Amino acid sequence: MKKSSATVFLASLLVLALVTWRFGFSGTAGEASASPGAHPFPDSALLETARSLFGTLGAALPAAVAAPDAVLGRHLFWDERISSDGKTSCASCHTSEAWSSDARRYSTDARGRLTGRNSQPVFNAMEQPSIRWLGDRQDGAHQAELSIVGSMGFADADALVPVLLDHGYDPLFRAAFPGDPDPISPANYGRALEAYQRTLVTPAPFDAYLEGTLGALSPEQERGLELFVSAGCVACHTGPLLGGQSFTRFGLARPYWEATLSEPVDEGRFAVTGEEGDRYVFRTPMLRNVARTAPYFHDGSAATLGDAVRVMADVQLGRTLEDADVERLVSFLESLTGEVPAHYAPPER
Amino acid sequence: MKKSSATVFLASLLVLALVTWRFGFSGTAGEASASPGAHPFPDSALLETARSLFGTLGAALPAAVAAPDAVLGRHLFWDERISSDGKTSCASCHTSEAWSSDARRYSTDARGRLTGRNSQPVFNAMEQPSIRWLGDRQDGAHQAELSIVGSMGFADADALVPVLLDHGYDPLFRAAFPGDPDPISPANYGRALEAYQRTLVTPAPFDAYLEGTLGALSPEQERGLELFVSAGCVACHTGPLLGGQSFTRFGLARPYWEATLSEPVDEGRFAVTGEEGDRYVFRTPMLRNVARTAPYFHDGSAATLGDAVRVMADVQLGRTLEDADVERLVSFLESLTGEVPAHYAPPER
Repeated sequence: MKKSSATVFLASLLVLALVTWRFGFSGTAGEASASPGAHPFPDSALLETARSLFGTLGAALPAAVAAPDAVLGRHLFWDERISSDGKTSCASCHTSEAWSSDARRYSTDARGRLTGRNSQPVFNAMEQPSIRWLGDRQDGAHQAELSIVGSMGFADADALVPVLLDHGYDPLFRAAFPGDPDPISPANYGRALEAYQRTLVTPAPFDAYLEGTLGALSPEQERGLELFVSAGCVACHTGPLLGGQSFTRFGLARPYWEATLSEPVDEGRFAVTGEEGDRYVFRTPMLRNVARTAPYFHDGSAATLGDAVRVMADVQLGRTLEDADVERLVSFLESLTGEVPAHYAPPER
Repeated sequence: MKKSSATVFLASLLVLALVTWRFGFSGTAGEASASPGAHPFPDSALLETARSLFGTLGAALPAAVAAPDAVLGRHLFWDERISSDGKTSCASCHTSEAWSSDARRYSTDARGRLTGRNSQPVFNAMEQPSIRWLGDRQDGAHQAELSIVGSMGFADADALVPVLLDHGYDPLFRAAFPGDPDPISPANYGRALEAYQRTLVTPAPFDAYLEGTLGALSPEQERGLELFVSAGCVACHTGPLLGGQSFTRFGLARPYWEATLSEPVDEGRFAVTGEEGDRYVFRTPMLRNVARTAPYFHDGSAATLGDAVRVMADVQLGRTLEDADVERLVSFLESLTGEVPAHYAPPER
């Protein structure tokens, strides 16, 4: 295991230990439903705990959406012409119907091939320290730049430049990168796409809750949040994105494929680092909008959010959840659903 | 004026109007000193206002500092060998003695030439939507990548690659960019430097104040904060960095060079956009650690923080400050001084 992964993992265990010590592990799942309305700890303590574990998202500023690099990025994101087959854009596999993810288990790239893993949502994704299931892209610009020869199907990155010029992108690049002597470049293509994606932020009822709005969560959602904290989901799903920050082995309690029936078995980050400690390790997905981004896991092997919650409790925490607890957790996770930003659509050309 | 600049400027005016409407413009500068301890509004209202206008910085997580891309970036930042003269590193002009800025008015690059503007601090700088005095670099990676043919003096960006290989950087790049088929590239050089600089965050007493720590600011500093808000400094110097977010004309009330005696007159962002509205427009500098980063302004024309405060009040707000108010503002600005991060130093090779 890498030093950084180990540090995050140990820190996560520490958080889990502290939380369990303070609030106790909600071992008997039926308790809360046996006495409706009885909370393991008072609402104010729940809010205080949530504030210390998570964080709010603020909507993108209008100035950021209107900035020339973000405007360029919006054009590029939705333009199918900027691909080797002339029919593939970023939005082809990050659809607004699926809240910037893909409702298919795998996506089809510009070469007509299936991607190796499920396409993750781009909303809120730019604040993560690395991108994709394996964390093998350092940021959104890196991901987009390498997509030129990846999903976009070009033979090499420089082959992008004449296609951009053919479709009249010269003025947009010049406006977006003033002072850059060579503005139309694969690196700036990546930067513009990152600038656009940085504006795709989706505040949700959970943010209103963290900010102190009474009634932002339903009582059922508050009970779901309690369980999310006390059961240990927060060991990995922390911060404003409820995840996205760390790498964890999928299957801490038992091999994941015993529950997901995945075939073939994906070895995760081991494929890119070759280190034993990275076998079956994936980036912890963020949970923002998770109720709208089915199917779940790197191979889309869980069709519903309830299925995904059950598998997580099973293989990460070694625990079988009762139906009422699954519903409660799903109900809480629905509070993470924001709105599709108005500018997540093709711009006028 | 660009649409984005205009939006930010109008938003700033709105903030200023609201703040002035709520708290009044502290027109007679001597008031507070005439009745020591008498605050224009209660401490709790000041804290509430400050929380709505600014924001806290959190120290970098150990996992982020230890991440392979940040470790690579730290090596690159301090390595003089990776330059055309073999004697120039990023740290040559961003010294720890000057809190990651340069105490000289201008810096010397690897070609032995003076830079055109004062070197700004890199601490906390990565959260800004653009970089440098003119905002002509979209992010830290963009800045670093273009520095290869800029401050580092190489004839072209690809000339960097053999120099990196000569000095044994191959394994560090492979570890930092797993999954990238071509990890040693100018773009990844930029990304690694950004990853390192992202960890250079300096929380300060002001953050403790915003978090509610009693006594984190001295009474004099609290009065300085009041004045900072009521005089209108916050129109531009807002957010967690107290600036860095917007572009503003230097000299709203009168031409800046009448106060700074700058020669030649720098036309600011006009030089890169060619738009009339961008003449004499610069990126609003952030104020984190400002008490340690003299000299001030794009040309280092103010030698002390007190001088800089006087010029700002004069040319931006059309106001002559009394000595006591200058001292009060400087005292507040000192609360923005954090500590030089321990890893702002050359790594062991």
